[in-house]
Amino acid sequence: MDFPQTERSTLKRLPQRGVYDRQLVYAILDEGFICHVGFVAEGKPVVIPTGYARVDDQLLIHGSVASRMLRILKTDIDVCVTVTLLDGLVLARSAFNHSMNYRSVVVFGKATAIEEADAKLAALRALSEHMIPGRWDEVRQPTDKELKATTVLSLPLEEVSAKVRTGPPSDDDDDYALRVWAGVVPLKLVPSEPVPDPRLPSDVELPSYARNYARPRE
Amino acid sequence: MDFPQTERSTLKRLPQRGVYDRQLVYAILDEGFICHVGFVAEGKPVVIPTGYARVDDQLLIHGSVASRMLRILKTDIDVCVTVTLLDGLVLARSAFNHSMNYRSVVVFGKATAIEEADAKLAALRALSEHMIPGRWDEVRQPTDKELKATTVLSLPLEEVSAKVRTGPPSDDDDDYALRVWAGVVPLKLVPSEPVPDPRLPSDVELPSYARNYARPRE
Repeated sequence: MDFPQTERSTLKRLPQRGVYDRQLVYAILDEGFICHVGFVAEGKPVVIPTGYARVDDQLLIHGSVASRMLRILKTDIDVCVTVTLLDGLVLARSAFNHSMNYRSVVVFGKATAIEEADAKLAALRALSEHMIPGRWDEVRQPTDKELKATTVLSLPLEEVSAKVRTGPPSDDDDDYALRVWAGVVPLKLVPSEPVPDPRLPSDVELPSYARNYARPRE
Repeated sequence: MDFPQTERSTLKRLPQRGVYDRQLVYAILDEGFICHVGFVAEGKPVVIPTGYARVDDQLLIHGSVASRMLRILKTDIDVCVTVTLLDGLVLARSAFNHSMNYRSVVVFGKATAIEEADAKLAALRALSEHMIPGRWDEVRQPTDKELKATTVLSLPLEEVSAKVRTGPPSDDDDDYALRVWAGVVPLKLVPSEPVPDPRLPSDVELPSYARNYARPRE
């Protein structure tokens, strides 16, 4: 089922690139793990990058209880969270028609804090599993003190839109005769060889979830 | 010379990760080419991804004159532009100490439109060269009509901060005894084999700037 289109979530520019399909929105949110959180502080916009996870129709973000951003977001104010996956440079025959291939999601709403300890722990587990599946069960679990030092916020996926551009350049008819290379340079966030902590004993093996890290999960 | 620290640009959280060094800010802005633009529309925050370029102490963004974002930003309102480079996942021995390595820049200010035709053309050239150096001189140049259909905005780099995390995880003393792998999974935006436009004649060669695309420029 599509996300409902509200005035705010309806694309103003290039509406043909707008997508409200729930499965596509999920796929974008599940591939990314960095979002840009926009809020208004003292009347002015602030945009801060942070990690996130999606669980059903909730977007979770977290951080220190000392985080100014999280303290502000807890006060029932409007937030805009944007996730952008860059897929390539689109090289057209004219300067004007150059573009990028991308998939982005914009979520509008208000976040609420997850206060109850079990729910908070489940959210932190989801955040970890979203970033690197398999990791959570191997590491030392949060203490009560660490849980108390952490704020977890949940933003409902209610007012959501996606915008997607794919495929080759779209040139003006006359420009196709030009003898200039045109096409797409694909781009992807790629892991390289994991770097062990200098203090790691040499006989601790690299786990497969780190050796074969990939997004989306393969 | 460092960027001056204002109340707004002074990091609230983990100030030890804060950087105001001009050369480091430039290096981050010059490696990235996607920013997230935050502004307030009808009292609510909006965050939109877009391309950008840096020229001296100006950040340039552009788009269609029909873009709602650009029309709003032209009206002398506050904007926050954030650029984030993700460098890796930081796997600690405890769930709590997991982190990411990243370099981000946050710019606060007001943007102004570049209206004069020669200045606008120079800005568009800079935007193209920032995205893919060498491309501009090979493609069809903008017509007057295309120039008129394009808005270019300039945001002064005056109120700017960077935030950087590098290196291995930082674990609690007691956790170093745990037999769990710890370290960093490096991440990088990497190009793959360029994909020619289906309408490209087969004898048009792939230019080296597309074949060897890399960020930062090598």
